[in-house]
Order: sequence, then C-alpha cells, then structure tokens
Amino acid sequence: MEYRMNDKEKEYRVEKDIIGEMKVLKSAYYGSQSLRAKENFHITGLNMHPEIIKNVVYIKKAAAITNFEAGLLDEAISLAIVQACDELLKGRLLEYFIVDPIQGGAGTSLNMNANEVIANRAIEILGGEKGDYSLVNPNDHVNCGQSTNDVIPTAGKMTCYVLLKKALIQLERLKLAFEEKSKEFDHVIKMGRTQLQDAVPIRLGQEFQAYATAVKRDMIRIEKVFEEIRYVNLGGTAIGTGINADEHYMKRIVPKLKEISGIDLIQASDLFDATQSLDSFVAVSGAVKACAVTLSKIASDLRLMSSGPRTGFGEINLPARQNGSSIMPGKVNPVIPEVVNQVAFQIIGNDLTITLAAEAGQLELNAFEPIVFYSLFQSLDTLTNVVETFVDHCITGITANEDRCRQLVENSVGVITALCPHIGYRDSAEIAKEAIRTGRPVRELIIKKGLLSPADVNIVLNPMNMTRPGIAKKSC
Amino acid sequence: MEYRMNDKEKEYRVEKDIIGEMKVLKSAYYGSQSLRAKENFHITGLNMHPEIIKNVVYIKKAAAITNFEAGLLDEAISLAIVQACDELLKGRLLEYFIVDPIQGGAGTSLNMNANEVIANRAIEILGGEKGDYSLVNPNDHVNCGQSTNDVIPTAGKMTCYVLLKKALIQLERLKLAFEEKSKEFDHVIKMGRTQLQDAVPIRLGQEFQAYATAVKRDMIRIEKVFEEIRYVNLGGTAIGTGINADEHYMKRIVPKLKEISGIDLIQASDLFDATQSLDSFVAVSGAVKACAVTLSKIASDLRLMSSGPRTGFGEINLPARQNGSSIMPGKVNPVIPEVVNQVAFQIIGNDLTITLAAEAGQLELNAFEPIVFYSLFQSLDTLTNVVETFVDHCITGITANEDRCRQLVENSVGVITALCPHIGYRDSAEIAKEAIRTGRPVRELIIKKGLLSPADVNIVLNPMNMTRPGIAKKSC
Amino acid sequence: MEYRMNDKEKEYRVEKDIIGEMKVLKSAYYGSQSLRAKENFHITGLNMHPEIIKNVVYIKKAAAITNFEAGLLDEAISLAIVQACDELLKGRLLEYFIVDPIQGGAGTSLNMNANEVIANRAIEILGGEKGDYSLVNPNDHVNCGQSTNDVIPTAGKMTCYVLLKKALIQLERLKLAFEEKSKEFDHVIKMGRTQLQDAVPIRLGQEFQAYATAVKRDMIRIEKVFEEIRYVNLGGTAIGTGINADEHYMKRIVPKLKEISGIDLIQASDLFDATQSLDSFVAVSGAVKACAVTLSKIASDLRLMSSGPRTGFGEINLPARQNGSSIMPGKVNPVIPEVVNQVAFQIIGNDLTITLAAEAGQLELNAFEPIVFYSLFQSLDTLTNVVETFVDHCITGITANEDRCRQLVENSVGVITALCPHIGYRDSAEIAKEAIRTGRPVRELIIKKGLLSPADVNIVLNPMNMTRPGIAKKSC
Amino acid sequence: MEYRMNDKEKEYRVEKDIIGEMKVLKSAYYGSQSLRAKENFHITGLNMHPEIIKNVVYIKKAAAITNFEAGLLDEAISLAIVQACDELLKGRLLEYFIVDPIQGGAGTSLNMNANEVIANRAIEILGGEKGDYSLVNPNDHVNCGQSTNDVIPTAGKMTCYVLLKKALIQLERLKLAFEEKSKEFDHVIKMGRTQLQDAVPIRLGQEFQAYATAVKRDMIRIEKVFEEIRYVNLGGTAIGTGINADEHYMKRIVPKLKEISGIDLIQASDLFDATQSLDSFVAVSGAVKACAVTLSKIASDLRLMSSGPRTGFGEINLPARQNGSSIMPGKVNPVIPEVVNQVAFQIIGNDLTITLAAEAGQLELNAFEPIVFYSLFQSLDTLTNVVETFVDHCITGITANEDRCRQLVENSVGVITALCPHIGYRDSAEIAKEAIRTGRPVRELIIKKGLLSPADVNIVLNPMNMTRPGIAKKSC
Repeated sequence: MEYRMNDKEKEYRVEKDIIGEMKVLKSAYYGSQSLRAKENFHITGLNMHPEIIKNVVYIKKAAAITNFEAGLLDEAISLAIVQACDELLKGRLLEYFIVDPIQGGAGTSLNMNANEVIANRAIEILGGEKGDYSLVNPNDHVNCGQSTNDVIPTAGKMTCYVLLKKALIQLERLKLAFEEKSKEFDHVIKMGRTQLQDAVPIRLGQEFQAYATAVKRDMIRIEKVFEEIRYVNLGGTAIGTGINADEHYMKRIVPKLKEISGIDLIQASDLFDATQSLDSFVAVSGAVKACAVTLSKIASDLRLMSSGPRTGFGEINLPARQNGSSIMPGKVNPVIPEVVNQVAFQIIGNDLTITLAAEAGQLELNAFEPIVFYSLFQSLDTLTNVVETFVDHCITGITANEDRCRQLVENSVGVITALCPHIGYRDSAEIAKEAIRTGRPVRELIIKKGLLSPADVNIVLNPMNMTRPGIAKKSC
Repeated sequence: MEYRMNDKEKEYRVEKDIIGEMKVLKSAYYGSQSLRAKENFHITGLNMHPEIIKNVVYIKKAAAITNFEAGLLDEAISLAIVQACDELLKGRLLEYFIVDPIQGGAGTSLNMNANEVIANRAIEILGGEKGDYSLVNPNDHVNCGQSTNDVIPTAGKMTCYVLLKKALIQLERLKLAFEEKSKEFDHVIKMGRTQLQDAVPIRLGQEFQAYATAVKRDMIRIEKVFEEIRYVNLGGTAIGTGINADEHYMKRIVPKLKEISGIDLIQASDLFDATQSLDSFVAVSGAVKACAVTLSKIASDLRLMSSGPRTGFGEINLPARQNGSSIMPGKVNPVIPEVVNQVAFQIIGNDLTITLAAEAGQLELNAFEPIVFYSLFQSLDTLTNVVETFVDHCITGITANEDRCRQLVENSVGVITALCPHIGYRDSAEIAKEAIRTGRPVRELIIKKGLLSPADVNIVLNPMNMTRPGIAKKSC
Repeated sequence: MEYRMNDKEKEYRVEKDIIGEMKVLKSAYYGSQSLRAKENFHITGLNMHPEIIKNVVYIKKAAAITNFEAGLLDEAISLAIVQACDELLKGRLLEYFIVDPIQGGAGTSLNMNANEVIANRAIEILGGEKGDYSLVNPNDHVNCGQSTNDVIPTAGKMTCYVLLKKALIQLERLKLAFEEKSKEFDHVIKMGRTQLQDAVPIRLGQEFQAYATAVKRDMIRIEKVFEEIRYVNLGGTAIGTGINADEHYMKRIVPKLKEISGIDLIQASDLFDATQSLDSFVAVSGAVKACAVTLSKIASDLRLMSSGPRTGFGEINLPARQNGSSIMPGKVNPVIPEVVNQVAFQIIGNDLTITLAAEAGQLELNAFEPIVFYSLFQSLDTLTNVVETFVDHCITGITANEDRCRQLVENSVGVITALCPHIGYRDSAEIAKEAIRTGRPVRELIIKKGLLSPADVNIVLNPMNMTRPGIAKKSC
Repeated sequence: MEYRMNDKEKEYRVEKDIIGEMKVLKSAYYGSQSLRAKENFHITGLNMHPEIIKNVVYIKKAAAITNFEAGLLDEAISLAIVQACDELLKGRLLEYFIVDPIQGGAGTSLNMNANEVIANRAIEILGGEKGDYSLVNPNDHVNCGQSTNDVIPTAGKMTCYVLLKKALIQLERLKLAFEEKSKEFDHVIKMGRTQLQDAVPIRLGQEFQAYATAVKRDMIRIEKVFEEIRYVNLGGTAIGTGINADEHYMKRIVPKLKEISGIDLIQASDLFDATQSLDSFVAVSGAVKACAVTLSKIASDLRLMSSGPRTGFGEINLPARQNGSSIMPGKVNPVIPEVVNQVAFQIIGNDLTITLAAEAGQLELNAFEPIVFYSLFQSLDTLTNVVETFVDHCITGITANEDRCRQLVENSVGVITALCPHIGYRDSAEIAKEAIRTGRPVRELIIKKGLLSPADVNIVLNPMNMTRPGIAKKSC
C-alpha cells in the first residue's frame, strides 16, 4: 500500500545528501534516503513486515541508551531517541516506513528509514522542526555505533524468533488436536495401505497418533533452531571489526537489547562470520520446510481418507466448510487440507529462494538479506495462519465412518499376512491370489482348504490383534 | 488489506446455503460463500490480483451474452449481469472481492465471490434487494454453463497473457538500453575474464551487446509461451465433458470471450486435459525463470565490473542512487543490480512452488491453481517492476572508466594468447609464467627473447585486433 | 568405474607442462593434464557420458579437416588426427577418458583428455611414440583454432540434441500407448473426481486420451527446444572474439561439424553471448521438467485408480510386475508408476541444479558447465529409460474393471449435477444432501419428490450422456 | 555397471513365484525377484550404494540371531544365514546385488535381492543347491519378522549415519585448514568489501577464521542430525503394527542390530510414524544443504580474492593444479573452488528431490525411499569427496599477496569511515566524494582541510587499528 499524501501535506522541505537534493513532504517523518529507496524499489508494492520494524526500533532504543552510558551520546538526544522509539513501539508513525521489503543494499533502506523517522520524531521532541538534522542526526546519533550490516541481520533474527514462537503455538494446538482425535478413534479398525494397496489392519487412532508424533518432531526441530538465531552480530558494525563502535557499547549493546526486547540474544563470538553468513536462516527455513513436508503429507492423507463420499475411500469425513462447487450441487471439498498443501508448496519454494540468496553472499557481507527476510517471514506467517485454520476448521471436526472402515477390513485380502507365520509365505500368496481372482473371502478359503481350524482362523484373522505386535505364534 | 466495515454497514441480511445460515452485511455485494471462504482462508491477508478479478468478470460477461443467445438466460437477467460486469470492469465494487489469493477449493471461492458480487449488483439493477437470489442467482444465472474448473484456469491464463505482455514491454526497453550502451562502449577495450581470471581482450560494447542478445533470446522464449496459454478450457465445465453447458454456448463462449477481452484465445481441443493439466503454467514459469537467470547473471556481472571504486575491477560506474551505507560515508552500492538478483531468486523459488503444485494434480482437476496463480503473478509483476527500475535507474546511466580498462589490458598477461599461433602453446606458456613471476610486460619479454620483431609484436599484440577473429597468421 | 592398469602397463613416461612434471603410464593414451584432472576431481567416481565424448571427438575431427583446408595444419597431421578420431568414434580407446564428470575448469579437463588421447593415437599413427608431442601436439594441433570454451558448450548442445531425440522416441511410444488404451476404454463409464471427491461421469477412454494429449504437448515443447541448442559458439574460441581462429576456419567449422555429425547445427550470431550464457540449457531442462510434471501426475493417477484391490478405487489393474512385498503375500504394487514419480522428482531436482549453475555464470564464461551437463544428461537418460519401462511394463498391460466402474457411477451422488439445469442448483443441492445422508439413490429421490418423470430421469441421468456436452435442455 | 555372465554361467534354474516362472542362471545367488526388479528398473544403470547393502546385511544377521533366540528360527538355518551375512560383510558376492538404485516398490527389490542372495548362500552352506528354498526361504527365513517397510528405512538411516561420519572427518580437516591459514594470515591487512564495494580494513586472517567458524557451525548442525536418524522403525514390519514380528524379537532386534553394527540405534517409540514419515531425511539433507551453502559462499570468495593475476583483486594465490586453458597459455584457474560450487549446486538440487519424495508419502508408507536414498547418499559422498580435494588441493596451499593487499588499503577511500566519530558522517561523506573524484588520498585531504592534525590522522587512519573495535574516541 503506497503512502498517499493529503492536501495539507503538500508542502515540502529540501534535504541534501551525497546524492544531491531531495524534496520531502514537510509533514513526513521519513527523509530523503527513505524516499530515494522508495523510488528505486517499487517491486512488491508492499510494506516491511511490522515485526521487523519493531525489532529495528528495539535496536535503536538499546543503542541510544548504551551509547549514552558509554558517553557517546548527550542525554537529551538519547532521551529523545528513546521516547521516539517508544512511540513507534506503540504502533505510531508506522505509515512513514515506506520502503519495499524487496530492496537492494542489504537493508540500508530499512535502516535509514528507521533512522530518519526516529531522528525526525526526536527532533520534534527536542522542539525542532523535522529535517533539522543538526539536532538529531539519523546517521551520527540514531545510527551511532551501528551499521546496516549489524542492525538488519540482528533485527531479522529477532523477527524470526518472534514468528517462530507464534508458529509453535499453533503447532502445539495441532499436535493436541491430533492426539485428541487419536483417542477418539482408538477403537476404529480400518485397513492400512502401503503404496495405496491394501496392506494390513490398523486403527484410525494409530494413524492420528502418528500425525501427532510427526508434528511433535517438527516442533522439536523448530525449538532447536532458536539456537541458530540467538547469536547476533550487533556490535560488529560494518564488517565485524566493530569499527566506530565504542568498547563499552560493544560489550553492552546485546545484553541491553535482550533486556529491552525480552528476546534471549547472545552476541556472536565471531562477528565477521556472523555478518557475512546467512546459513542460519537456511537452517531455520529448513526446519520450517521439514514441517511443511509433514503437514502436506498429512493433508494429502486426509484428502485420501475422506475421498468419496461414494466412490472413494470414505473412511473419514472432514467438516463441510463451504460449497465445494459452483456447478456440482452438494459437493463438499477438502478445502482446508488443500490450502495446507498449497502453503507447503509455497514454503518449499521460499526455502529455495532463501537458499539461493544465502549462497550468493560475497566476502564481508551478504547483500541479499531483504529477500531472505521477505521469504522467511512469509513462510512463517502463512505456516502459522494455515495451521490455525487446519486445527479450527478441519482437524477438530473430523468424524470417522466406522462401519465403512470395518467393512473394508472384512472384505480385504491383506489380512492374509497374518497367516504367513502359520502356513508360510508361498501358500499364503496362493490363497491371496485365489481370493482376488474369485472374489471369495480369505477366511473361507483357508477353512475350506483345511489349512487352519475355524477357531484358529478366528484368532489369527482377528483384525484388532493384527494392530498389535506379538501374534506370530511359531517359526516362520 | 482487510475490508473494514463502517458503522452504517452494521446491519445484516441472512443467507442460507447447503452449509447453513450466514449473516452478511446488508450493504455487502458479496454473499455467504465469499464470507465462508474469507473465514476459512486467512493466509496471506492480501487480496486477489486485480487482473484475475477483471478476467473472471470478462468471462461472466461473455457467458451472460452467450447464454442469452443460446436461449438459456432471460434477456433482462443477461443485461443486468452484463451491466454489473461493465461496472466492475471500470473498477467499481472491487472492495467486495474479499477472498485470500491462497485458498483451497481450486478457486471456487474466487469464482463464487465474483458470482455473488455480480448477482447482487444485477439484482439491484433489476430493482431488487441484495440477497434476493430469486431475481439473479449466483449459481444458476451468473455461473450458468460454467464451473469453477473452467472459469478459473481460463482467467488464470488470461491474466498470464496480460502480465506477460507487460513484462515484454520492459524487457524490450532493457534490450534497447543494452544496445545503446553497446554502441556507446564499442571502442572501449578491456580485459575479458573467464573463471574470473584474465583471459583475452574484449570490447565493453561487445559485452553489452551480449547482454542485449541474451535478453532478446529470453523475449523470444516468452513470446513462444503465449502459445501455451491461448488454449483455454472454457466450455468444459466441471471436468471437460461440458456437462450442463449448452451446445451453442460451448461453441460460442470462447470466441465471445476473445472478442470482449481482446485476448487471442482458442478453445482447447481436449477439454479433459485442459482442465486437469497445469503444465502450461510450468512452461510459462520456466520461460520467466530462464529470463531471471539471464538477468541475475547480468546483474552479477555489473556488480563485478563496477566493484571498487579503488580496490575492485573498477571498469564501469553505476549511477549512484542512494547512500550506500549508514556508517561508511561516501559508499555507493550497486543497489539496483542487487534487487535484480533478489527478484531472480524469488522467481526461481516461485517456479518451484508452481512446479510442485502442478505435479500434485489428481485425476480430473488440479486443485492447486490458487498457489500457482499467486506465485506466477507475483513473478511476472516483480519481473516487470524490477526490469523497469533496472533500465531507468541503472543501465541507462552506466559510464565506462576507459583509462582504467585500457591500463588493465596493457598490464595483463592474457594477451600472450595471441602469440600462440606464432610461437606455439608451450613457449607462450613459459613467457606467461615468467611475466607473472617477474611482473614484467609480455611485450618486453618477447622482444628481448627475439621471438618476434618489435613491428610484428605491435601487430600481434594490438588488443583491438584481438577482439576480432582472423589474426591467426600461420599454422598452429 | 576407475581405470585400473595391468602389470604390463606399469612403466611410465614423464610429461612436462606449466605445472611441472608428471609420470604417465607408457601405455596410456591420455597425458599429464588428464592425470592432473583425475587427481583433482575424485567426486562421483564415474566417467563422462559416452555421448559427449563422441561429440567432442566429432569436433576434433571437423577442426582437423577445416584447419587443414585453411592451411593451418599439415596434411599428415590432419589425416592422423582424423584417423584417431574415427577410431574413437568406433568406440576404441574410450577407457582412456579418465576425468570425472563433475570437474572444475569449465570442461578443460575433458577437452584436454580428448586432445591428449587423440594426439597420442595420432602420434602412433605417424610412427611416433606416445608422449612425443613434437609430432602431434594436443594444444597446437588437436585443439588448433579451438578453446575449451567453445568446444565444450558445443559438445554439450550436441549431446542434448542426441539424448532429446532418444527421449522423444519413447515419448511417442507412450503417447501411442495412451491413445490405444483410450480407444480400448472408450466405452467404460466411470466416475470423474475433482479434488478426490465424486464429481460427474467420464469415460475411462477420455481420461487416457487426456494423458495422450498431455504427452503430445510435452513432445511439442521438447521439439521446440531443439531451437535452443542448434546455435553453437564453435569458432568463438576463448571468449567469443574468435582469437586464434583463422577466418576460413571460423566460417567453415560449424558447417563441417554439421556434415560430419549429422546434427543440424548453426553458428550463433553473437559468439560472446553464446559463450557465456547457459540459459539455453535451463530452457531445455525446463521443457524436460514440464514433461516430468506431466508424467508424475499421470503416474499418480494410475496409482489412485488402481488402488485396492479391495479397499481402494479399484477401477483399473496395472500389470503385476513383481511381488509387492516381502511380508504381505499376494500384494502387488504399482512399482512402475512409482519409479516414474521418482524419476520426475530427480528431474525436478536436476532442473534446480542446472538453474543454479546457469545463474552463477560470470562475465565471459560460465565455468559450471560440467554440473549442468552431468545433471541434464542424467535427466534425459533417466527420462528415456523410465518412459520405456512405463510403456512396456505398465501402460500396455492395463485393464479396466468395467463392472466396478459402472457400479460406482450408479451409486454416486455427483450425477445430480445433470439435474441442475432442470431444477436449479439450490434444489439439486438439497437432494444431494439427502442422498448422502440417507444413502438412497438420487434417481429414487427425484422421482419420489415428483421433480421429474421417470422417463426424463432416464434421459437426464444417463451417465453416457453426461460425458458429452449438450444435455442442458433449458434455461439455467 | 551391468552384471555380465561368463560362458560357464549360461545354465539356468527355474524359479516360480506369484507372478510366474523365471529363468535364473544356475550360478547366480540372486533369485527371480531380483531379476524381475532388474528388468523393471533399468533407470540409472548403476548399482546400489555398497554401504546400504552392508547395512541391510547387518539387519539380516541381527534378525537371524534374534529370531533364533525367540525360537522362531532353527539353529542350523540361523547359523547358515549368519555365516552368509558375514561373508557378504567381508565384501563377497556383492556382484549379485543387481537392482538399480532408482526403483519402484519402496525398496522391496533391494530387500528381496538381499534375501535371495543370503538364502542361496545359506542353502549352499547347508549343503543344498541354489534355488532350493525349502532349505532356506528368502521370505520365511531370511526376512523372518521383517518387512521391506522396516528393513529399508532402517538401513537407509544407518547408511546416512556412516556417510555423515565420513563427511564430518573431512569437514573437521577443512575447519583446521582454515584455522591454520587464519593464523598464518593474521597480520595481513587488506580491504574489506561489502556488496563488492570498498568498505573498511580487515585482516586476511579474520576472513579465514570466519570460514572456520562457519564450517564449525555446519559441523555442529550435522552432529545434531544424528538424532534424526538414530530412531529406526525396525520391528514395526509392514506398517508399524509389528504384524508377524514376535514380541521377543520386537524388543531385541534393535539392540542386537546396534551391537552388531556398532551404530547407536534406538527403536522409535511410534513405529507408525517412523514407517511413514521421511522428514528425518529432509532434515539431514537440510543440514547438508546448509553446509553446501557455506562451502559455496567460501569457494566463491576464494575465486574473487584470487581473481587476476593482473586485472582482478589479486589478494591471494590458489595453488596451480592444472593448466587452466587449452588455448590461453599460462592461465591457471580456480578449478578446485569451482568444483566445490558445483557440488553445492548438486546438493541443493538433491535436497529438492528428497523434499519432493518425502512430501509425496501416502498413508502408512512413503514408497519413494529409493530416490531419497540415491540422492542423499550422492550428496554425502560428493560432499565428502569435494571437501577432501578442497583441503588437500586448495586451502592448504593458499598464499597471500601481502604487498598488493596493503597497497589496496592505502589507496582506498573506505578508511574514511574511521573519521566519522571525529568529524561526523556528513563531512566524511564530502571528503570521500572528493577523494574519489580527484583521485587524491583521504589522508592528504583531511590534513589539507585542517580537520585533524597529521598525528591524529596517523592514529585514526591506522588500518590495523580499524580491524579491532574501540577506536571511536568521542561522541558520534
């Protein structure tokens, strides 16, 4: 959404920088550098993710305090910057963040947008007029001791942190929903299928428990990647040498930021590496991608099991959420699992974009952070959103067609497997073949051929038994 | 951007469908099915691409006319639908398209959103009240003879068509910009590099011409993919059998749509295939991806050639577009090529998402069109936008450092290659080795060793000659 | 497979190059540069694809002839090189191609391996001893007028050409197989499914025809990419300037190569572009990928339709090719479609590798051709192989379960769609809902409710009619 | 490499299975099912990875022992199977593993190939003739208590385990090599570059330390994924229910396998999930991919820093490994980093293939393990091989061009950054601009303008100081 000025705003101040002069709306809190960036990068037409703006502001606030403590910033300026930051953190002035999330320059545009908005607001607080950077300078004061190259990667990691936490909340709900369904369906015997072919019996509850287990594993994997993003390069400034950062500031800035933001951050021990390497985001995206793979597989399973109502598997019913068709009356489609699949496809695609950008880093910096962040934040947001709808609009409302499930088991040939330890693979295979050819039940053929007594058949071919280990009675 | 109701709107009508009842704002042109979709799919928080909305409306208009001609729709209803469509095509009521671009259900939500908005507006035109679907029914009238399964793929192809045309305009501008630079730099001799190692001389103009040639080839490739998207399945309805579509309608709908939309569409001969296969979008995305690969390679080259100003290649200067650094004064970065690289990474990622979605189609339909469209339209939009900024804010302003280029050639060892036909590979290699070891010029070593006369050396080592074929004078 | 020397070979000659001295087996036709490459690149442990070796040899032969015609090569040397090449083209000495397909250096290792083997064999033909490069020199004679940078991309394109032709032969067979099945199954009415939910009737023959159509479109797409690879940069030598290539040679080499190889090649008009850009291979891989998407979708459909035998869709039977299980007797799995899916996954992965390598090109050359070729040739070979087994071991043996298909249609609710033009969407939806809830047939409910006469119901609900357009009788 | 029979072998036995009769060479240890698989899957023409064969054999041995202990297998048969396994583990009979690594059927072909070879060898050991499966039956005895569906995923995880360990050894060597270079180059001051533009000074040793740190982080990430693959589903048999597995066997098989193989395995607590989910392999591949991203970035850096020798950055020299060009004498290329980049591209492509296969799992099994394993083992092997050559043939031989590095720093403008805390960003920027425009040194301009005293300039502009934090002397 492009910022649009109203009539009152149509008066300009002139700002000057190394590139030249630039007319800026008098009312605008951004400055010439934000405007140049806006002009250069009209790519998505969207705004920066609000969460990364917030985290950049946290950094600016922490820096203003720490620089004051280090004697590098006057108290008045420091206080004005802090107050400006606090206003932003309450959600004010966000409309002055005008740069496109896909931008060249490794995030300098975002960093300067923040520096300018904060400086201009601080100037006002100090009684000056916007644009009078002699009072509060975006570079010398707001950006004091910092570089885009440490601010932006740090803010990116903080944003990941926050968004991952949100995703975990929804994943936890999903896991619980599967576990509840697992209990609810524990007694529902159905046919297991491998390679879409009838295999051996399973309980529907076991299937849903398997989904819970898989989601749990994804959660553990995601928990682990917090370790990837706690280590930030703030203090390293331009390339990791910490040039222009005061020693006191170097030591204190990350603890201060941790305190202010509530995010458990640690300063990386190798600031060069931490400035130039984006493999941590590849790792985060990788964990999210693995989760997407799990969810997509589950969504596909649900679509298979609910296929029908008459000509498919028909084992479960998904809640009807909307008319399925504009032409076919009464059709209800598995729209929620379908959107899960699609978000998974997007996450996998984003993972590739992130990988490409990370691989393309050169020497002391990877300039491609903006696309990494855009893609990764999108993955995390859509994951969170889709899991929420998955839980609320699909999983919790699933019901089982118990009769249908039982009939399919009784009608199946795969139960022959249980005979294998008793009559051997070869003979079992012959009976299976005959059953399929003739359409007659396995049970009948075994008894007829005198392979087992009816009583033994009852035990061996009891489907519930087959869903638990330990029915192999004698030597294979 | 979510639609927000104002106070006046806070009165509701009740709509009923197969799922149940639904409260809809009285003022709203959408209906219950759009609302259900909105509730189900809060994924990106964004709206549908305006171009696909427009193309769905074109289809609805063409269908209303064709169904009337076929005697399937009353004239009054047909006219009201057409008028409603015309209003939408002028940009009205777009705020009532409320469904998320990433949605389950193969686009039924978008199709029904259009059906409902058009029906309600047509109802008003006929003097009724919104929600009184006995006058104009979203399914029976607006959707008459159609299915989501032919409407949405057709609208998707039309949208591709329009967006590809826009991209081509910018690519043509890019090609011309490279060609102009090629002429401007035709006389600038510089060192060619293979594998980043000094190779043999080239003219800067030849390099820019190569970029023009590559972009031209991408344009040809994109021109070819229009053939992929001209063939639409409109008329095939649910699965390609054309169930519920009248024979007259079947034959006339696509020509009518072509006439109304101005897009050169043809009805696919195999409507089953055209309904279930999305490989055409994979092919479109593939062409766009190949173009992204070209652009990314060129952008990387420009970043290499402009590296410096003092410690890099320093052969060209990119226009300074914004301060390059918040900490390093005077630094100007190649921000435009960098955003080109990033858009390329995104397009490559989107290509994967599209591929995954296309691969996942099942039987008579691919339900994953929404993510295909979202990703593909994003690729096309960002391609168009980034090429525009590439031309306007980078290519046209590039200047050459002629002196630096010439000095590098004169200082190089790679020119030794031209001696190879005269003194053989082995001896040439020895001189190259000595030149690198001692730092002395190749020219001096050859003359000193008496391998060629100074006059011959002048001819053979003339760099301009080396940039044209035909200097091999005798047997290798 | 690594080359292993026998006892007799264990005597060495010493070769010297710019790097230093190297012991080479006296019996070996390769030389020091091949050996260095082998030492540097122990990556896959595999050999170069025989087809690219063949095409490099074609180039060497064409160059020897053309250079002789241009007066740049003695007749004796030229004839000896040609004879050596002819021997190689008959399949001799291939064991002396020892370099790994994944190699640094843009293919120099392969080019020099060819130059050395040909030189040493030519030396023998001229009566000399292997290693006596004063007679025939790998660089000055065999490589005369050439560079790795034009030889290898040209050979790569030729190899694509040949492998694509082979793939097309199998795809044509596949298309025909689908068409035959389409005829065979033309009368088999079955339920169409969208989103895995019962939709409306279709004929099995229509489904198989759709597969034929899709494969046909892929073939057309592949036919078009020959245009991408006909334009070769041979003659451009190191960077496209044609340095060290004689003018006569420049003009004649590609026509000569075309004549010798039988491949319809054209010299690119912009040799700079043709040397540095690999987007053509991206385009080739893209077409192959689109084909893989089609094949994977079809394979998945076949697995769905043949799911069962008792608890799945059970509409078709795939030929039993091997025991499906080591534990479940009688189980037969869709192993051939499964391998089709897997090859598709590999091709999609390879397409990414190729894209990455193409994107990473720098300035006058893309040094990453080896991985492009390795991946692309693998995609083409496995595509050809898998389609062959798909045709021979799966498609041609598919049978239909006509009774089952018909029963599913008769039992379905989706046929209600045909009533929509007669009784409207809303009422149809109500009946559908009741049918699903009560399990009673749609036909019965309509007649009972007096919505249509039994005679009309017979016409409207005739499934065969529903598979053809034109049954909408009156206004929607 | 296809197995080729010699003349003596040309006598056949006939084997019969559910599919029919099959002629098998009398001398062959494989049986009809292996042969059928070979016929079905001629895809790559390659053999299974020897490591997975070995791990399948470990499983067979562990199962034979455990089944004997459980009273399910006669001692004689158990002992014969164990002896056969031990012979295979010593490398014998591997030529009878004839199935293609890309195969349908979820690995049944490999499992049955192992069952048949072991059975036939055990039959011989017991004095029988190959093919007499009444003595030792591939299914009933060798496969006792097992299913392909637990054997193959378990063997796949074991193989990952072993190959990851090998990769770690080479990565450790790489890390050490970087650390050694870091020390060696600790004193070499050079210009740091961000976005390829001159930034601020850095020490070459700091750059190499950053590489070591990045590799170390990749190692930690890889260490963590062992946790992903320790949990195996052996004992779950067909779908996780453990059907046909004895209770004793269920409990003992994994500890026994751990004991025999020396791999620290644990039986998964949810055997359903562990049978159907392949996300663990996605996670493994993800860690390997992140490592590939790191390596590729480093390789690209080395190529940049060694670019030249005369017209590039020229800061470091890579060891000359082979002639760089067939046409340009004396050219030496960065062939080892180039092969590193290419292997990275392959690993990223393979990661995609693995992701696709994992996502495509259905219900109780993912049938696409073969392509997952083929791709993942290839990634691991090529990673190990390429890192080895990277260390031995590149990193350890790198030398620095100290003089060149120092000159570039002295000549640079980026050092102006250090002035920023002293004279402010705005004035610093003006001086930078003037220095670039006039070509005059920054030092000279500052003194001339009287901004700092010559003595202060010496301190502030001391490049070594700039590579350490703490030079900001006063308020920004």
